[in-house]
Amino acid sequence: MLENGWFREENESWNGQSLSLQVDKVLYVGKTMFQDVLVFRSTNYGNVLVLDGVIQATERDEFAYQEMICHLPLMSHPNPKRVLVVGGGDGGCLREVVKHAGVETIEMVEIDQTVVDLAKRFLPNMACAFDNPRVTLHIADGFEFLANNQSKYDVIISDTSDPEGPAEKLFEESYFQLLSDALAPGGIVAMQASENVWLKLDILKSLQERCKNVFPTVNYATVCVPTYTSGQLGMMICAKDPQTNLQAPAAKKHIPEDVRYYNEGIHRASFVLPTFAKKYINN
Amino acid sequence: MLENGWFREENESWNGQSLSLQVDKVLYVGKTMFQDVLVFRSTNYGNVLVLDGVIQATERDEFAYQEMICHLPLMSHPNPKRVLVVGGGDGGCLREVVKHAGVETIEMVEIDQTVVDLAKRFLPNMACAFDNPRVTLHIADGFEFLANNQSKYDVIISDTSDPEGPAEKLFEESYFQLLSDALAPGGIVAMQASENVWLKLDILKSLQERCKNVFPTVNYATVCVPTYTSGQLGMMICAKDPQTNLQAPAAKKHIPEDVRYYNEGIHRASFVLPTFAKKYINN
Repeated sequence: MLENGWFREENESWNGQSLSLQVDKVLYVGKTMFQDVLVFRSTNYGNVLVLDGVIQATERDEFAYQEMICHLPLMSHPNPKRVLVVGGGDGGCLREVVKHAGVETIEMVEIDQTVVDLAKRFLPNMACAFDNPRVTLHIADGFEFLANNQSKYDVIISDTSDPEGPAEKLFEESYFQLLSDALAPGGIVAMQASENVWLKLDILKSLQERCKNVFPTVNYATVCVPTYTSGQLGMMICAKDPQTNLQAPAAKKHIPEDVRYYNEGIHRASFVLPTFAKKYINN
Repeated sequence: MLENGWFREENESWNGQSLSLQVDKVLYVGKTMFQDVLVFRSTNYGNVLVLDGVIQATERDEFAYQEMICHLPLMSHPNPKRVLVVGGGDGGCLREVVKHAGVETIEMVEIDQTVVDLAKRFLPNMACAFDNPRVTLHIADGFEFLANNQSKYDVIISDTSDPEGPAEKLFEESYFQLLSDALAPGGIVAMQASENVWLKLDILKSLQERCKNVFPTVNYATVCVPTYTSGQLGMMICAKDPQTNLQAPAAKKHIPEDVRYYNEGIHRASFVLPTFAKKYINN
């Protein structure tokens, strides 16, 4: 909510704690068919995109999450050529995926055209790859798109908002089955996990179990982002092949030159959990 | 500040962003010779200690930082027997140090008796080791204590508040020289670095350079703590011997059984920096 020159992110999913960012200027307030949208220029974090009251991206720190959810699967796959992004209307994932020269086609299925339009207008450093000739944008429901899909992908990135809202179905096991069905042999999925280890470990454990019902290899990774709840966000990285090592780059992979967060050490470190979380999730 | 049932942590050191915790009951408000003190029971983070308006510890997440600033140096040292804690009046570091059975003497020098008293009253799970027979508490200025010190320590933990306040001198090079002089051969210092990579990288770089003027080995480590600014805190770990490997446990070390955050993987991962920070700090 906006009050006294600040945006404050209160939410039932993280009762009793809230982050506030100081507002320099409100740039857009509206309601799409799917969600409430707020865009403001902050005093210290650049432009900020808020959906249904939850911070999705700030210009200052967005690269951390965008890089990790893309480069973890793309670097663990020896040679990804066909990539699908589900969600990701701000364009940040597309910007990262096109950095991989070996990727030949990138499809994106985003439910809300307004998010794409607003990102082009207010987050131009994120929404900079929509015109890349390898990119095809579908404005559609991600679940339905996959239910009707005949293509196979090497990497699928599920860059959704949290489950409370239009992305609810994208945290269900039936969706994970659709993702698995759409993967080529050796394929890898990376999905926003919504929870982090400091909030609801039981929900995180349950999400991991639903993933394990579908994928033989499931690993949870963390990325530090100051403007996400508790300062971090989790991602489930899942492989169709039980032999795939998700926790390191594949052999002879070349790291894109213009990364700001990702490196080989961070790739490995992102899968390391503190003891209390490791014990709880894996028991 | 307290308003509308919430504590809000606004501070000039992190302009434009602030964390709020919901207050169940204010337990103590006062002013010592050295600082403003607030203790409240929060709705979701247990009891919370605030000094000069800055969150020092919450019962829910304090163990992450307390464990890391203690076990990183204690596990990297092959056989620490004499330990000094500078600051640390809440008792959290003492609780962690006494877990190492090989440690024979633990001295602590804390400037503010009131913090110790309040911790015993409101943070009993932190202030649980003051009565341990290996522990000696000195209520004194840490800088002056070290200037007059004749003892040698294997590990020194500088668990201070931020430099804006009574701990200002404890971020200066002259203090680092006193720390070095007080270390036995092979000794290790761990100090709260105040900054994290998402705030003022220039101050972090400058701190590291001051440390490098004194110590041959200086490594920066990060711990994730939801209620610290940006969700993380940094620590400078410094060794007197250039051969000391700070980034892993020493050979044949036994990890204390009752840790909740620390493990060998986290030890190594805590020193891994994202690319933008690594480039800036090390160039």
